[in-house]
Amino acid sequence: MLHGNILVAQGGGPTAVINQSMVGVVLEARRHPEVTGIYGALHGVSGILNEDFVDLADETEANLDRVGATPCSALGSTRDKPNLDYCQKIFKVLQAHEISTFFYIGGNDSSDALRILAVEAAKANYPLRCIHIPKTIDNDLMVNDHTPGFPSAAKFVASAFAGANQDNRALPGVYVGVVMGRHAGFLTAAAAGARGHEDDGPHLIYLPERVFSMKAFLKDVQSVYDRLGRCVVAISEGIHDETGDAIVSKLSSTVEKDAHGNVQMSGTGALADLLTDQIKKNTTISRVRGDTFGYLQRSFLGCISDVDQHEAREVGIKGVQFAASEDRDGSVTINRVGDYQVEYRLDALEDIAGKTKVMSDDMINAAANGVTQIFLDYLTPLLGSDMPEAHRLKAPRVKKILAG
Amino acid sequence: MLHGNILVAQGGGPTAVINQSMVGVVLEARRHPEVTGIYGALHGVSGILNEDFVDLADETEANLDRVGATPCSALGSTRDKPNLDYCQKIFKVLQAHEISTFFYIGGNDSSDALRILAVEAAKANYPLRCIHIPKTIDNDLMVNDHTPGFPSAAKFVASAFAGANQDNRALPGVYVGVVMGRHAGFLTAAAAGARGHEDDGPHLIYLPERVFSMKAFLKDVQSVYDRLGRCVVAISEGIHDETGDAIVSKLSSTVEKDAHGNVQMSGTGALADLLTDQIKKNTTISRVRGDTFGYLQRSFLGCISDVDQHEAREVGIKGVQFAASEDRDGSVTINRVGDYQVEYRLDALEDIAGKTKVMSDDMINAAANGVTQIFLDYLTPLLGSDMPEAHRLKAPRVKKILAG
Repeated sequence: MLHGNILVAQGGGPTAVINQSMVGVVLEARRHPEVTGIYGALHGVSGILNEDFVDLADETEANLDRVGATPCSALGSTRDKPNLDYCQKIFKVLQAHEISTFFYIGGNDSSDALRILAVEAAKANYPLRCIHIPKTIDNDLMVNDHTPGFPSAAKFVASAFAGANQDNRALPGVYVGVVMGRHAGFLTAAAAGARGHEDDGPHLIYLPERVFSMKAFLKDVQSVYDRLGRCVVAISEGIHDETGDAIVSKLSSTVEKDAHGNVQMSGTGALADLLTDQIKKNTTISRVRGDTFGYLQRSFLGCISDVDQHEAREVGIKGVQFAASEDRDGSVTINRVGDYQVEYRLDALEDIAGKTKVMSDDMINAAANGVTQIFLDYLTPLLGSDMPEAHRLKAPRVKKILAG
Repeated sequence: MLHGNILVAQGGGPTAVINQSMVGVVLEARRHPEVTGIYGALHGVSGILNEDFVDLADETEANLDRVGATPCSALGSTRDKPNLDYCQKIFKVLQAHEISTFFYIGGNDSSDALRILAVEAAKANYPLRCIHIPKTIDNDLMVNDHTPGFPSAAKFVASAFAGANQDNRALPGVYVGVVMGRHAGFLTAAAAGARGHEDDGPHLIYLPERVFSMKAFLKDVQSVYDRLGRCVVAISEGIHDETGDAIVSKLSSTVEKDAHGNVQMSGTGALADLLTDQIKKNTTISRVRGDTFGYLQRSFLGCISDVDQHEAREVGIKGVQFAASEDRDGSVTINRVGDYQVEYRLDALEDIAGKTKVMSDDMINAAANGVTQIFLDYLTPLLGSDMPEAHRLKAPRVKKILAG
């Protein structure tokens, strides 16, 4: 049960609302008199290892509200993934500081770190409750309908493509935008979230759930261009060939890998440059531009879905409530009920940890170059109440006099 | 004087508020009963050449307001720059449609196209009034304190770097963001617009107004990293060596040039990749990430400075008022008076056309790697009333027990 000192930390890639979950944990824990200390570990599990804790007792609610509205992990993050040795060092620190419950806000890798910690704690007979609080812009956590962080990142991507579509109408050509997402295409698919008119881009969307063929891609682009005189493409950084090799990993002789063995895909414009180069060389189109959205999509100040903001706060609050009411480890999950409401549950860590959810088949079109109405219906409520819209002139053409 | 049919068009790179100026022209022109027709040319001067006009008479004010709030040229844009032959074809079209006044919304190149048109019209004894309405995210028009489009793009860049700074605090390393701006560094410098705490990034800013030295750059980055354990860098796409050659132009064997002879700098991630590669190879820092902001900074839906929005509408309105009250060609300029108010004037086309304003020396620090308080004081009011802020936890460290 919830008592004594509790610890909260943040792991993995930051999101626009990850601080809401931390603030939810802190404010809810304050309502429990049996909680005597609320600590934050700096930079996730590595902060535990190094005994880098802050005492959140004196944080004012006013400042916590402001921090909650600020993107990116205020406690700092880490890519560390604890092994047995790492876990044993962690237990020593937790024991010294009499930590009874650990709330870890993170994605697949963070939840797996927590699962390992929980298993090792049980083996070592160390009394530690482990509660995972979901977050990831990739939206790839099992069980969850969606994950905090995704809706705000989706709003950014949809807004960016709505703008790029207007830009592409003004100065026609081909525009390719590369979006984050290693295995799951949700965020790339969100590029379609702000389409209004029938000919609005993105006209083509390529997802890591399908095999990418350069030949089919070039044919698709030429076909849209021939029809509309322009073409906007959304493409996932994680696109791969039939062998499963990421297209971007073929470009770099020095592929960088993180502690989880993942190839570094963001922080480079190589994929966009490769694709625009291929279009210039293999089609009749001359004006071709590519952007890589990079870190902007997860950290941009001032692009937050209010639905996301609210839910991210609630998963933190619910984590503490579950820790108080149920004597078990687990992961807080978001479950959609009705249209549109959510319910929170505490599911087993092993149902989420280290697993990856991808887009379902009915969200992707048959040609593997777009999304279906089912995906759009899924996405729209997540974007929140103030998603901007793009509007057009409706003025009729003036009859030509000279050429008429 | 203002009478008969008038024509409005948009040229050059789109901005977030270029439609406000078009809407300002249309709504103000409607107040003049002597104006009988309000036409829009599609895709700038090329639309005149091709007789591609729309009749804006039946546009509702409600829809015009919505279009005004939508980024990117609703009439379409062009990079065409008319020569004598082009001008003569244009006159034929204008004559056929009895156009008396042409309002051209654009930047340096568009104003120069208008200047050429005005000169040729005078030579040909063709009665045409030419009014230039300023816009450009580069903020590089002479005479003007600043130009519509810049404040919103600056808000985007400042918001992006405020977010990237938080991201970089959460997962330390080096972050390099490449910002648009060929000759003028204003937009890159705007990266500093949302700094709050003393150690907030961007910690280094490189502008095209100064010669770029790779050696000094690498030394600067290492120095900031050694001091803070992290480093955020804002860099202009237009950085060049002592011979004036753009660094990015050395990277590509097939340099693309536009109709104005400008090297294509945007739409590729090559510069960011070069710089991050140099840092990885020549410093002790391993985690290095680069983003190229690309087209997002000029077209992103939902990131508009309200000051910019207001002024962009007003320069359109004032253009029509000047055309009605003064019998001369000219360019509407924004002049800062007081702190913070502006006045609009009609200046001679040749004072603006084809010229480039760059940052003044007192806006750039002595080390050529940052901006001064003078620049920040200049920038701040332009960002508008709802610039988001980033906030931090203030919690004290918990005393270490094991390592203590």
